[in-house]
Amino acid sequence: MLVDRGNLVQALVHKFGGQATTSERSKALLGGKGANLAEMAAIGLPVPPGFTLATPVCAAYYANGRAFDDGLRAQVAAGIAHIEGLTGRRFGDAANPLLVSVRSGARVSMPGMMDTVLNLGLNDASVEGLAAGSGDARFAWDSYRRFIQIYADVVLGLPHSDFEDALEIAKEDRDYTLDTEMTAQDWRALVGEYKAIVAAALGRPFPEDVHEQLWGAIGAVFESWESDRARVYRRLNAIPAEWGTAVNVQAMVFGNMGDTSATGVAFTRDPATGTRQYYGEYLVNAQGEDVVAGLRTPHYLTRIAREAASAKPLSMEEAMPDAYSELARVFDRLEGHYRDMQDIEFTVERGKLWMLQTRSGKRTAKAALKIAVDMVGEGLISKEEAVLRVDARALDQLLHPTLDPQAARTVLTRALPASPGAASGSIVFDADTAALRANEGVILVRVETSPEDIHGMHAARGILTVRGGMTSHAAVVARGMGRPCVCGAGAIAIDMAARTMRIGDVTLREGDKITIDGASGEVMQGVIPTIEPELVGDFATLMQWADEVRHMRVRTNAETPADCRTARQFGAEGIGLCRTEHMFFDAARITDVRAMILAEDQAGREAALARLLPEQRSDFADIFRVMAGLPVTIRLLDPPLHEFLPQREGDFADVAAAAGVDVARLKHRAAELHEFNPMLGHRGCRLGITYPEIYSMQARAIFEAALDVAADGGEAPLPEVMIPLIATRRELDMLKAVVDDAAAAVFAERGQHIPYQVGTMIELPRAALMAGEIAESAQFFSFGTNDLTQTTLGVSRDDAARFLTQYVDKGILPADPFVTLDTQGVGQLIDLAATRGRATRRDIKLGICGEHGGDPASIDFCAKVGLDYVSASPYRVPIARLAAAQAALRAQN
Amino acid sequence: MLVDRGNLVQALVHKFGGQATTSERSKALLGGKGANLAEMAAIGLPVPPGFTLATPVCAAYYANGRAFDDGLRAQVAAGIAHIEGLTGRRFGDAANPLLVSVRSGARVSMPGMMDTVLNLGLNDASVEGLAAGSGDARFAWDSYRRFIQIYADVVLGLPHSDFEDALEIAKEDRDYTLDTEMTAQDWRALVGEYKAIVAAALGRPFPEDVHEQLWGAIGAVFESWESDRARVYRRLNAIPAEWGTAVNVQAMVFGNMGDTSATGVAFTRDPATGTRQYYGEYLVNAQGEDVVAGLRTPHYLTRIAREAASAKPLSMEEAMPDAYSELARVFDRLEGHYRDMQDIEFTVERGKLWMLQTRSGKRTAKAALKIAVDMVGEGLISKEEAVLRVDARALDQLLHPTLDPQAARTVLTRALPASPGAASGSIVFDADTAALRANEGVILVRVETSPEDIHGMHAARGILTVRGGMTSHAAVVARGMGRPCVCGAGAIAIDMAARTMRIGDVTLREGDKITIDGASGEVMQGVIPTIEPELVGDFATLMQWADEVRHMRVRTNAETPADCRTARQFGAEGIGLCRTEHMFFDAARITDVRAMILAEDQAGREAALARLLPEQRSDFADIFRVMAGLPVTIRLLDPPLHEFLPQREGDFADVAAAAGVDVARLKHRAAELHEFNPMLGHRGCRLGITYPEIYSMQARAIFEAALDVAADGGEAPLPEVMIPLIATRRELDMLKAVVDDAAAAVFAERGQHIPYQVGTMIELPRAALMAGEIAESAQFFSFGTNDLTQTTLGVSRDDAARFLTQYVDKGILPADPFVTLDTQGVGQLIDLAATRGRATRRDIKLGICGEHGGDPASIDFCAKVGLDYVSASPYRVPIARLAAAQAALRAQN
Repeated sequence: MLVDRGNLVQALVHKFGGQATTSERSKALLGGKGANLAEMAAIGLPVPPGFTLATPVCAAYYANGRAFDDGLRAQVAAGIAHIEGLTGRRFGDAANPLLVSVRSGARVSMPGMMDTVLNLGLNDASVEGLAAGSGDARFAWDSYRRFIQIYADVVLGLPHSDFEDALEIAKEDRDYTLDTEMTAQDWRALVGEYKAIVAAALGRPFPEDVHEQLWGAIGAVFESWESDRARVYRRLNAIPAEWGTAVNVQAMVFGNMGDTSATGVAFTRDPATGTRQYYGEYLVNAQGEDVVAGLRTPHYLTRIAREAASAKPLSMEEAMPDAYSELARVFDRLEGHYRDMQDIEFTVERGKLWMLQTRSGKRTAKAALKIAVDMVGEGLISKEEAVLRVDARALDQLLHPTLDPQAARTVLTRALPASPGAASGSIVFDADTAALRANEGVILVRVETSPEDIHGMHAARGILTVRGGMTSHAAVVARGMGRPCVCGAGAIAIDMAARTMRIGDVTLREGDKITIDGASGEVMQGVIPTIEPELVGDFATLMQWADEVRHMRVRTNAETPADCRTARQFGAEGIGLCRTEHMFFDAARITDVRAMILAEDQAGREAALARLLPEQRSDFADIFRVMAGLPVTIRLLDPPLHEFLPQREGDFADVAAAAGVDVARLKHRAAELHEFNPMLGHRGCRLGITYPEIYSMQARAIFEAALDVAADGGEAPLPEVMIPLIATRRELDMLKAVVDDAAAAVFAERGQHIPYQVGTMIELPRAALMAGEIAESAQFFSFGTNDLTQTTLGVSRDDAARFLTQYVDKGILPADPFVTLDTQGVGQLIDLAATRGRATRRDIKLGICGEHGGDPASIDFCAKVGLDYVSASPYRVPIARLAAAQAALRAQN
Repeated sequence: MLVDRGNLVQALVHKFGGQATTSERSKALLGGKGANLAEMAAIGLPVPPGFTLATPVCAAYYANGRAFDDGLRAQVAAGIAHIEGLTGRRFGDAANPLLVSVRSGARVSMPGMMDTVLNLGLNDASVEGLAAGSGDARFAWDSYRRFIQIYADVVLGLPHSDFEDALEIAKEDRDYTLDTEMTAQDWRALVGEYKAIVAAALGRPFPEDVHEQLWGAIGAVFESWESDRARVYRRLNAIPAEWGTAVNVQAMVFGNMGDTSATGVAFTRDPATGTRQYYGEYLVNAQGEDVVAGLRTPHYLTRIAREAASAKPLSMEEAMPDAYSELARVFDRLEGHYRDMQDIEFTVERGKLWMLQTRSGKRTAKAALKIAVDMVGEGLISKEEAVLRVDARALDQLLHPTLDPQAARTVLTRALPASPGAASGSIVFDADTAALRANEGVILVRVETSPEDIHGMHAARGILTVRGGMTSHAAVVARGMGRPCVCGAGAIAIDMAARTMRIGDVTLREGDKITIDGASGEVMQGVIPTIEPELVGDFATLMQWADEVRHMRVRTNAETPADCRTARQFGAEGIGLCRTEHMFFDAARITDVRAMILAEDQAGREAALARLLPEQRSDFADIFRVMAGLPVTIRLLDPPLHEFLPQREGDFADVAAAAGVDVARLKHRAAELHEFNPMLGHRGCRLGITYPEIYSMQARAIFEAALDVAADGGEAPLPEVMIPLIATRRELDMLKAVVDDAAAAVFAERGQHIPYQVGTMIELPRAALMAGEIAESAQFFSFGTNDLTQTTLGVSRDDAARFLTQYVDKGILPADPFVTLDTQGVGQLIDLAATRGRATRRDIKLGICGEHGGDPASIDFCAKVGLDYVSASPYRVPIARLAAAQAALRAQN
């Protein structure tokens, strides 16, 4: 054991700074921060010296009844001596005092969860030395009172408010408004009061002994590992309590010791564009807080940046050329070492540069692409590393039109960013008007959308709804179509009679222009200019590298020739889900669909279906032409039939007239078909069982279309006929027979044959459980993870908005399970179904066609389970390609 | 191998009758019928002699290219010789011909699935012998033409209709209407025509060679094993194709050879009452068909029965005393041998009794009880066997009032028998009127019921609905309450405005009397007298024996003191599910519930909840008093809140006034709460997460009530607080904390403590999958199999009627999964959850509270999985006790 009564105590404390820097780099042992500081020190960067109490000390602290043993004390003393040696200052010295920071540092970052004590080492004697050394008594006494305040809170457990109250009274007594008005003398007086508060509360004075201060702070950091908030955070992030935290004790450095001191933050490349130039800001005679708090305006780091902005204050490059050129050397050293763009904090103390932090810098999607591709060119990283460097989710930013960031805008309201992209157009309040006025460019605004609105959603440039969440009908359909969408804009009140909408005190009429930004959720007045995406250059390069390494195929969910073309441009290798119901909503067909539903018997249904057959055949033929030679998975009719009947009282008369039945009959049939829980109702393959003639017509349309395309000289596709909502093998047997019969009939009529497959969606828990049996009939499985999530979790996608946000906020679910697959729960069923399916049919084709097929985290899971392909909406195909490549690369390591 | 080229051919054919009867009894080898015939022959009963071709011959037939080898032919010849020896007739003999039947007989009964040939051995020569021997030429020629007709169909594969057409023409030519008008000469002429039809179709004559006839028939029986209908039946019943069928060849006997011949059917005891007296009917000079077809009225078997019915025709006891007394000896021999009441077919041929069949007789529930208990008294069977003998499902007949079978009745319509029992009362058309007029005894008639009707359903004696299936709201709630219910009576048209209902041309007004029979689904005009169940005597005795052997506890699903008392009388050992929402619908409380829902903030909700607290407390106290000392599982609020708001347009104004809000606010809130799929919506623990104050109030009411009951000197119950619809462990953690906090607060206030548990329903697939983790917090699991079935199969109970019947009819599902647990699918999840739950918490209490807890087949599964208890509605508690005992006994074997 590392901590066994001092036998191996040398392993407990790890120094950094100078030659004494530990060779240990384990984050498990040193924590993230400790390992990082040791790393920077080891590669010769100027890091304020210090030492790290390794994470096992934390466990030992608790195991020993919250006490420290002599071995540890001796090691910490040696650590302090190490800092004193390198800084030339002495801990607790009155003339030239060493001040230290004491910080937590767990194996993984737990931002804000644990405690930190700064300026430790100040007491009534050393404060004078700090004042003298800094030449700034006010700074010294302010630092001292801050130290007491933090220490009293963190270490002594006294209420924050007592000290804040004392400060407020001190300011009132002096008629001050701001803290900055407090003089050195004022702070000194307050320090006296603070110490009196501590003495009164504790019955003993504030510790003047700096070693007592240090051990108090170390103990407090360990205690904070078991604080309520840290425990909650650990539970939510699955961090074991046994890990413990390390403690970092490090010499303080000050950027506010006059005009040769400074502090700043910087990036080694431009994080917005990715351009290879230093980027950052700094402030002379300032502390890190000053830069962050925005009390003073920081200045540019480089001359070029200052000139480009026509700014007057000198850049650091100009004002502190020596420190700057050392900083530049450090930047290059860091990029060379970490092989990534770095985000840095630094301080210059009396001309001397100190590095306080480095980490991989956050960046825009555009910058991420450029940096990754550039670094391959620079020989810094491999193509595979470049592929791993770009956050696939962030690509979404690049694949849609975006608002011109320079353009002025009036934001009317902000709601849910349901489908990315920006769009402007005239307001319309119903789908028919949208279709009618499509040429002028419209935004469809509705309380909520239903399947009847599909043609209007297709016609519109963007969709805005008053109700519904990220996974409402509007959101799901819009993402599928690649239309920008903002949902749940509760601030909007629509007056359908007046054809107006009101947001606050702004009233807009049908035809007025608005702009929506589906990436931010903003709704804006008027037309805001947008920028079109560019999918060449770095994007194309990275995508090519991704395609070289990925194993899973990427298909698309598409049902119109236009969507199919978009998807192929984005690199789709087939269709994973071609829904057929949207075709039924087409104005030209809905009458026949309704006639089919209203028919009294099978003969009546077949007559109506015969009229639909040529329409479906031409739908499929159009799609097959675009997808020549590629697999096309077509899902037979899925939604409950009542979705095709009018929902609104006012529509019954028109529809009845069009269908040639009386209103009473139509209403009766609608009432008959009404369902309490349509999601769990008479839909999917259950329709095929009740009305096999529907599936028979659809299958015939598929095979006729495939032969038509082949006959026209095109390459035939590989139709994969998919039966939805299977729960038992027998359903599939019966419906596979319907499809096979249709195929046999068409092939016999035409004297021609094409290969095809029949398979099923796995979208019910029972289907997953029975996958071994179902695979005896199914040639492929496609995981319908939308419905599988709904049934496994018992959550309706349409109704979830009411509580799902809260569920994610409270950590009940790690993410919206309709966006990122619930791998713990739903994932078990997928894994089990894949395993059982393959056990029955070794070469069964496995794919996913739920919305998760476009979500990188979910795609990673799909790769782990060994799916053959994922299928995503057209605009998410590149994301899926990249995510599939990353999953393949991660699996290699 | 048994059938390897004749090496072991002696094993292929097994004789029965006389000393030569095989010692083999394996149904796997002989088939069910063959084994049964051998058994009867072996115990010395008069069975027409015959032989059985064992089942492996069937496989060999197919393996040998549908051919028979010489070894088999030799064995069959020996079999025929065996029959000839015992009957004194010769196969194919013109003077004294042996006729045989050739029947299939698989290991398990496959009624009607395979083919049979009777009267085989007739040809142009032997028909004359039969005519002479029977003294009835008409009978002989009729038998011959029937034989040709069957043989042509079954063996030769010729169309049935050709022969029927010929018969019709023959009758028309002679101006006959009925077959009985055909004379011997007419039949003879028809035989000629039949043979001409065969010859024309086959190009060769009908086989006159009786051996060719025999081998043809044997082959046809084997062929019928692979017929479409047999294959479908096997697939549906999971019968392996490899089993094959046996073939039984047996001497024909005739009950229509004059007045010393007869045929009959009998039971060894009265199958209606169980009384130990012979029971049956017979006909002199008749064939079995005549008894079954009802062309002639059969006579009583015994003198006692004839006299009791004041009938004139002599009983068999009187008319054929010798045959009768042999029959009586056979009855006693059979009961002694099979140790059960037998259902028998017999024939007397010229004074000689022949047994054609014996099997355990079907009986009423009452008879089953009496016979089982009597037979223990007679020393025939053990108590354990008696327990296994009574079909638990059939007990349902005994536990409810039933219609007096003697009473006259006018049946208006017949619909679904949704909840057993008979009830009479005045028609009322809404729940409020039902409550108001409850004292006069009412039947609530509605199109369909909703949770708002609960108080009316409670107030009514019976419920009748126009729409909805066996698992509709009305049916489920009625079964839970033990109210008779008839559902889906589509023939009824309700006119709410006129307060009348019409069935056919009968119009009934509110207040008119009707009677419903929930066991038959009949709706009758007026009041029909009913008979109350008696739960003493044999019933009590058998229940006591059952309780001695069962391992699983039996609880009840109940939420009123009355239901609790009923359940305890029926032997419930606790409450497995006490729903709390029904209490919220009470007229006195619904206003406060609505105020809570309409509150703008938490404070408003808490104010309303504070008014509900004393009401809930007294609800629980009343229940706890009845259930003193027993565990009571209380489920916290489960349904979505919109269920408590008015559903009907007309109700909004009244409700708004009562709640003190304006109609617009009420409608807005109702619209806000509306859900597309309420089953998958904001309900169960999701309410507790959003509004913890509701669960907190309920928990407080539970603990206060428990302490109140203890303080009143009563025994405190063991409250088990159950959180519904858990999908994640964290939900349970958060809500367990709410319950524990309430308990701690109440215990502190009262200075008193009682033990309690907190657990969860497992009713979502995800909960089952995560059971290992959830068990870390849950002290018990209760499987909510209603919802678990809905989500696992993706089927809404309320909407399933539309396709579920069809699913069962088509063999897609073996049974309604809401009645009998889908053990293949849902069962996997239960098994997995039980295993994982126990792995985490060895002593976790496991129970089931879905409706399946009262279904014997499901209870058997629960026992296999090792649940600690099942919970059933009060009236099903005895069924569950018996089923649990049977499951325990079966597990021993």
